[in-house]
Amino acid sequence: MKEFDVIKRFFSEQAVKRKDVSLGIGDDCALIMPHERQHIAVTTDTLVAGVHFPLQTEARAIGHKSVAVSLSDLAAMGAEPSWISLAITLPDTDETWLSEFCAGVFELCEYYNVQLIGGDTTQGPLSITVTAQGLVPFDKHVSRAGAKAGDWLYVTGELGDAALALRHVQGKIIVEDIYKAQIMTKLDYPKPRVLAGQSLREYASSAIDLSDGLISDLEHICKASGVGANVVLDDLPISNILRDTLGPEKAVELALSGGDDYELLFTVSEDNKVGMETALAHSGTAVTCIGQLNGSEKITTTLDSKPVPITTSGFEHFSHDRK
Amino acid sequence: MKEFDVIKRFFSEQAVKRKDVSLGIGDDCALIMPHERQHIAVTTDTLVAGVHFPLQTEARAIGHKSVAVSLSDLAAMGAEPSWISLAITLPDTDETWLSEFCAGVFELCEYYNVQLIGGDTTQGPLSITVTAQGLVPFDKHVSRAGAKAGDWLYVTGELGDAALALRHVQGKIIVEDIYKAQIMTKLDYPKPRVLAGQSLREYASSAIDLSDGLISDLEHICKASGVGANVVLDDLPISNILRDTLGPEKAVELALSGGDDYELLFTVSEDNKVGMETALAHSGTAVTCIGQLNGSEKITTTLDSKPVPITTSGFEHFSHDRK
Repeated sequence: MKEFDVIKRFFSEQAVKRKDVSLGIGDDCALIMPHERQHIAVTTDTLVAGVHFPLQTEARAIGHKSVAVSLSDLAAMGAEPSWISLAITLPDTDETWLSEFCAGVFELCEYYNVQLIGGDTTQGPLSITVTAQGLVPFDKHVSRAGAKAGDWLYVTGELGDAALALRHVQGKIIVEDIYKAQIMTKLDYPKPRVLAGQSLREYASSAIDLSDGLISDLEHICKASGVGANVVLDDLPISNILRDTLGPEKAVELALSGGDDYELLFTVSEDNKVGMETALAHSGTAVTCIGQLNGSEKITTTLDSKPVPITTSGFEHFSHDRK
Repeated sequence: MKEFDVIKRFFSEQAVKRKDVSLGIGDDCALIMPHERQHIAVTTDTLVAGVHFPLQTEARAIGHKSVAVSLSDLAAMGAEPSWISLAITLPDTDETWLSEFCAGVFELCEYYNVQLIGGDTTQGPLSITVTAQGLVPFDKHVSRAGAKAGDWLYVTGELGDAALALRHVQGKIIVEDIYKAQIMTKLDYPKPRVLAGQSLREYASSAIDLSDGLISDLEHICKASGVGANVVLDDLPISNILRDTLGPEKAVELALSGGDDYELLFTVSEDNKVGMETALAHSGTAVTCIGQLNGSEKITTTLDSKPVPITTSGFEHFSHDRK
């Protein structure tokens, strides 16, 4: 099959047609309309087969995840997702595979009213790069750099299930059958916290999405904001599955170091705590306070009010951790 | 070396700082400011090692080409390049290689005042995906769809040298030593026709950049515009090198079918011919009229005023032509 036919057939027939897209797929460029008094947030993520997802991952999950990880970055900025460009490198043109991949992409696009405006299809080892763009009103974005000593540290949802699922797929950890479907969904179909991110615009002093692991991502906030943090390990939102499977100590370790959660880690001043909790309750998002920022420029952890050393660090693509 | 260090060290220290970039590299997203009454043109291209460039290509050329092919798409739309996002998948972190790659990227960015606003660095087989964005005033873009029967068909520059260089590298064609440097520059360091593209906003009825080969790209204009075209082979701007190396007949064949020219192919109405030629002379761009559009919805070619069959077709990534 010719390259152009692949693109045309699978990527041109999407349901989302936004009014701010003046020209979509099919020309040298797409054309989008600017919005008054809105910044455009832009983020790019690449998923490489065997590095960012196990080789046996189903096509629909790969399509979902390719979009979800970029929408998660937009969420961390408080942006409303609007347009994506999708570049896919494929070893061959398996039509069933492509059809399922596109189903995964478009399910998420339709849910969030995101239009696919362009991309590229090339031949080579499987990888996908998505550039996602979204809108955020002037001066309402949430960066990594606004956290202050005294602010409270929060996280959405639960931690560590996706990392547990990955280690299960890799054969490193045995997971009981009744748990498998639930944790595999966390790994394969992460839900970007898009609505929560927009709710945080008015309240959070900083935010980041958890892709590399809690400690590693918290380091980014601390460095960008020039602060330190203490994480209260007793308060980490760890699922029953993770605790049952690994026991409390190892569960905490994986919750701190495992990647792929795609939850939001964010900071809120004392004054904004109540407002934030109310707003996130309205968006149906569970949040947990897991610590507090300080002026130390270090990250510490406590358990049962006693300091404990941090023994883990986040996922690094070049550290041979997950090849 | 850790992923974050790679990104920080090589990609964060660029010279271009645009006023419309409110937040650059280093957060979950970049933030760009919209411009009043300007569309944003968006295009994405992936280059895979061994498919889109020979494996032995020097790093600086790969960096240059990664940006040039996307700027060429912006040029074909009449857009002014503004921002790029660059995703690179690398087998390892060779610092010399990365430094030269970045030199190739930033030379072009600095020349066109394009700011790198984000991207991703991942491990895997070498490939690069660039999403480039540019600005074009409302209703001034040049699409593929505006050509009309009777319009004249033009092309910038000369055709076929890059395709000749590729075949030389592949060992398929022997090229004289005195010619090698010049044709390799055409293949490795294509010059996107950015100024010419902007000059065409007022005059061209349609435009496309030549990446897949003249006939193949002309087909896109004809399909999008619902027209046909006759190409006068006698008038093709073929370089002396190409003619000397292959002889007139094979030279024409390569000029019609070879990819990687990154010249602009465009159409102009009779009324706009003089204005266009004057404007492009001001931008220092050589142009050649190579045919005329008609109502046939077919592409034909003539030589010495006699019809000749088309024996070649453009480069298709999945056609095993250039693996």
